[in-house]
Amino acid sequence: MSTQPILVNGEWRPSSGTSIFRAQNPATKEELPESYPVSPWPDIEMALRAASEAYEIIRGWPGDRFSAFLEKFAEEIERGADAIVEAGHLETALPISPRLKDGELPRTTNQLRQAAVSAREDSWRLPVIDQQNNIRSMYGSIGPVIVFGPNNFPFAFNGVAGGDFAAAVAAGNPVIAKGHPSHPRTSQLLAEAAHRAAQASDMPPGFVQMIYRTSHEDGAKLVSHPLTAAIGYTGARHTGLKLKDAADRAGKPIYLELSSINPVIILPGALKEREEAIVTEFTSSCLMGTGQFCTNPGLVCLLAGEEAERFVGSVADQFSNAPAGTLLGAGVDQNLRAGIVALQRAGAEVVTGNQPADSARYCHSNTLLRTSGKAFLENPHGLQTEAFGNCSLVVVAENIDELQAILRTLEGNLTGCIYSATNGGDDNAYNQVEPILRHKVGRLLNDKMPTGVAVSPAMNHGGPFPATGHPGFTAVGIPASIRRFAMLQCYDNVRPHRLPAILRDK
Amino acid sequence: MSTQPILVNGEWRPSSGTSIFRAQNPATKEELPESYPVSPWPDIEMALRAASEAYEIIRGWPGDRFSAFLEKFAEEIERGADAIVEAGHLETALPISPRLKDGELPRTTNQLRQAAVSAREDSWRLPVIDQQNNIRSMYGSIGPVIVFGPNNFPFAFNGVAGGDFAAAVAAGNPVIAKGHPSHPRTSQLLAEAAHRAAQASDMPPGFVQMIYRTSHEDGAKLVSHPLTAAIGYTGARHTGLKLKDAADRAGKPIYLELSSINPVIILPGALKEREEAIVTEFTSSCLMGTGQFCTNPGLVCLLAGEEAERFVGSVADQFSNAPAGTLLGAGVDQNLRAGIVALQRAGAEVVTGNQPADSARYCHSNTLLRTSGKAFLENPHGLQTEAFGNCSLVVVAENIDELQAILRTLEGNLTGCIYSATNGGDDNAYNQVEPILRHKVGRLLNDKMPTGVAVSPAMNHGGPFPATGHPGFTAVGIPASIRRFAMLQCYDNVRPHRLPAILRDK
Repeated sequence: MSTQPILVNGEWRPSSGTSIFRAQNPATKEELPESYPVSPWPDIEMALRAASEAYEIIRGWPGDRFSAFLEKFAEEIERGADAIVEAGHLETALPISPRLKDGELPRTTNQLRQAAVSAREDSWRLPVIDQQNNIRSMYGSIGPVIVFGPNNFPFAFNGVAGGDFAAAVAAGNPVIAKGHPSHPRTSQLLAEAAHRAAQASDMPPGFVQMIYRTSHEDGAKLVSHPLTAAIGYTGARHTGLKLKDAADRAGKPIYLELSSINPVIILPGALKEREEAIVTEFTSSCLMGTGQFCTNPGLVCLLAGEEAERFVGSVADQFSNAPAGTLLGAGVDQNLRAGIVALQRAGAEVVTGNQPADSARYCHSNTLLRTSGKAFLENPHGLQTEAFGNCSLVVVAENIDELQAILRTLEGNLTGCIYSATNGGDDNAYNQVEPILRHKVGRLLNDKMPTGVAVSPAMNHGGPFPATGHPGFTAVGIPASIRRFAMLQCYDNVRPHRLPAILRDK
Repeated sequence: MSTQPILVNGEWRPSSGTSIFRAQNPATKEELPESYPVSPWPDIEMALRAASEAYEIIRGWPGDRFSAFLEKFAEEIERGADAIVEAGHLETALPISPRLKDGELPRTTNQLRQAAVSAREDSWRLPVIDQQNNIRSMYGSIGPVIVFGPNNFPFAFNGVAGGDFAAAVAAGNPVIAKGHPSHPRTSQLLAEAAHRAAQASDMPPGFVQMIYRTSHEDGAKLVSHPLTAAIGYTGARHTGLKLKDAADRAGKPIYLELSSINPVIILPGALKEREEAIVTEFTSSCLMGTGQFCTNPGLVCLLAGEEAERFVGSVADQFSNAPAGTLLGAGVDQNLRAGIVALQRAGAEVVTGNQPADSARYCHSNTLLRTSGKAFLENPHGLQTEAFGNCSLVVVAENIDELQAILRTLEGNLTGCIYSATNGGDDNAYNQVEPILRHKVGRLLNDKMPTGVAVSPAMNHGGPFPATGHPGFTAVGIPASIRRFAMLQCYDNVRPHRLPAILRDK
């Protein structure tokens, strides 16, 4: 079977390289038949030039041109939904229903449509008009954007269809998508839909492009190239930090979503009041999607006592009784096991799980680890290792001072939750931990697990480094997410007829 | 005379180090009597710990606590204005009137008061309330901010009193200021005023601190320290890029204002119509403050023709007739000469100036250089060397295509101007150059020189790299400048009484 084409400069064309890769079905470990190219630099450079040419054409266009594309794209995805869902399932082992078909696909088209509304209404531009000084400013497009999609959301964060893509397009930019190599067929189908939508809405050839894979060196060269304007990346920390380094040196804005263990603090009064409900909520949040969410609750902080012991025991029961879900692939499986080993070396003990579950597919038994507050404080770095998957670490602190000390050692995270008694019995403790946690996380929750990132204008899917690269930006939530792919454009004494419409006197 | 103290942890105290420096009077090249410490790491670490402790105290405070400080500080500056202006004049040779007394000092207190209003009204927070999902977000304080002030605005950009300081405080953060070593006495007087205001408004000891100088290594260590939350830097590109590198690696937001040659395009119709006025505007903008503005027009692009030749001749006349102003110090003088040499080596020719003017003070004769569009395109990098001071380079392009090609090679700049005929005769040319220039600059001007950065909410004193580190932020203009020193804080399902007031249901 011949190697699949890449989408560059308005055409599906063969890669100029010869190196290929194949995807695997994680539920069977079998290689899937299609082969896909690893794009060498000439592929990437052609895409960059085409994106730059496209940008010269579109940079003056009004928002509704981009809305038209985004809406058409949402329609095209819906038209091809069955095939897209089927490919996504085959390549990721994520369940068709409700996850892919009823959850992630509608979320993806919803994001595209929300972005379309924002592009049409210019609601992301934050216009400021100073008539007295005749100075006006707004956010405007920035230029070609590179989007690297992750493995765990084949649709909603896909480089060619997900939130970063929608935001970059809504701001009026061309996008070069880097599909994640674990789901190339899914990315191809989404790119085909995007390409049809681009043609139907008269976008220039380099407006939407997609390549499947590059070398790490070419990735770094791409993000730091003079024709690149900004970058969105969601994925592993190691690769993300290399791209960040290259982009930073070249002065390119790069928005990263890297890793997060999402601390959950459960105060004793909450457990006294509703232990069973919290155990079930936690187990469900932690094992859903086999724990492969950026907001998976990977660290639970408890205060020592019988409530804590009961909680650990009940969660361990639920973990051991629940089936082990299938992981996204060999890499996730290896990293999960390596993460558990690292946590053990740092002082964590296995409460349950950490066993091979089924050698016919990528999976690992649901794993609960625990450690003491004292041990955590002796090795806070090691005990914050992310074990991405169906695994969580419980830390039992002796008292509130120790809990505060633990929170002070935390790296930046996407989310942080505090469960507390409804009768006010935990309020003192809450007030002692909240201010510390607040500044470590992008989203602070009460009495609710962190998984489930609503596409709300008030959402912050972001947080301090190393959860992301900058704590002022969100990857989810329109219109704020759009402003990442924008520059601040000021017009000083510019003649009225030359101003963007939104900056003219009313 | 003993070495001056530093302001750390609420006290003026001696530095723990022994290395000292003195400032010079640029108008006489004489060393000024006071000696100031080069702070070793223990000074810096003490300041960081104090700032961190202060932040633990103030992070929940309402905006009006910070407004009270800012307003008191403005009053204290006004109360000490005569001495501050005198010190500024002695250390920078900038004229007392109108520059320091009537321009920069009122601008500084105005900025502090605008920041106070914004802090009180929470107008920088961009609150978003999603009642249906019970998700709410806003910008909130980020933690200890380090501000490095430049040499060229001893008050308005001073680390302990300028725009970055005001913005960081308005967002609710403690500040560690690094005074510029060329004007330590000025910084000391401002820090004394800030300290008095902090005491009068009951701020904790580590809220406002100032050191005068550090080694480059300690500067890098400071910006990447775990207790540092964000950094503002205005100054030379070389030092700024080293700090950026250190901050980026540690994932610390750093806002830089580095260098800019501020291209001015003067189209032929504008010269036909009002050559004399434009010549005078340009000369005045370029020589004002001896050209030592970040927005100094360092590059003028003309289309070949008799208008261009007349413009160059007239500017040369005005340059040679105008007195050579005094430069800020030995470093600026050396860098200006080195910049002119670099431009000459890259192909620029001297039209007028480039002579020693007066060996008793730091100065260089007003220098106009020129080159052809062809030569520029052969060495666009070299011919974009910033010669900070009373110097500008004219590039004469053969035609509009060459002018477009020149603009495409430009690095990011703070500003870009286009002068065009009022009768529409240049509109075609305008439309061909504006889209290219627009994306290279933060502020686009028509028929107006770039110097004079109004403190307007619509101002963008920012632009693409390497003018700054990120094209989405401005260093001037409230409230936007405040959001630089903030993090996005989301509250998901948080109980109503625990929400910040601004996020509660109305």
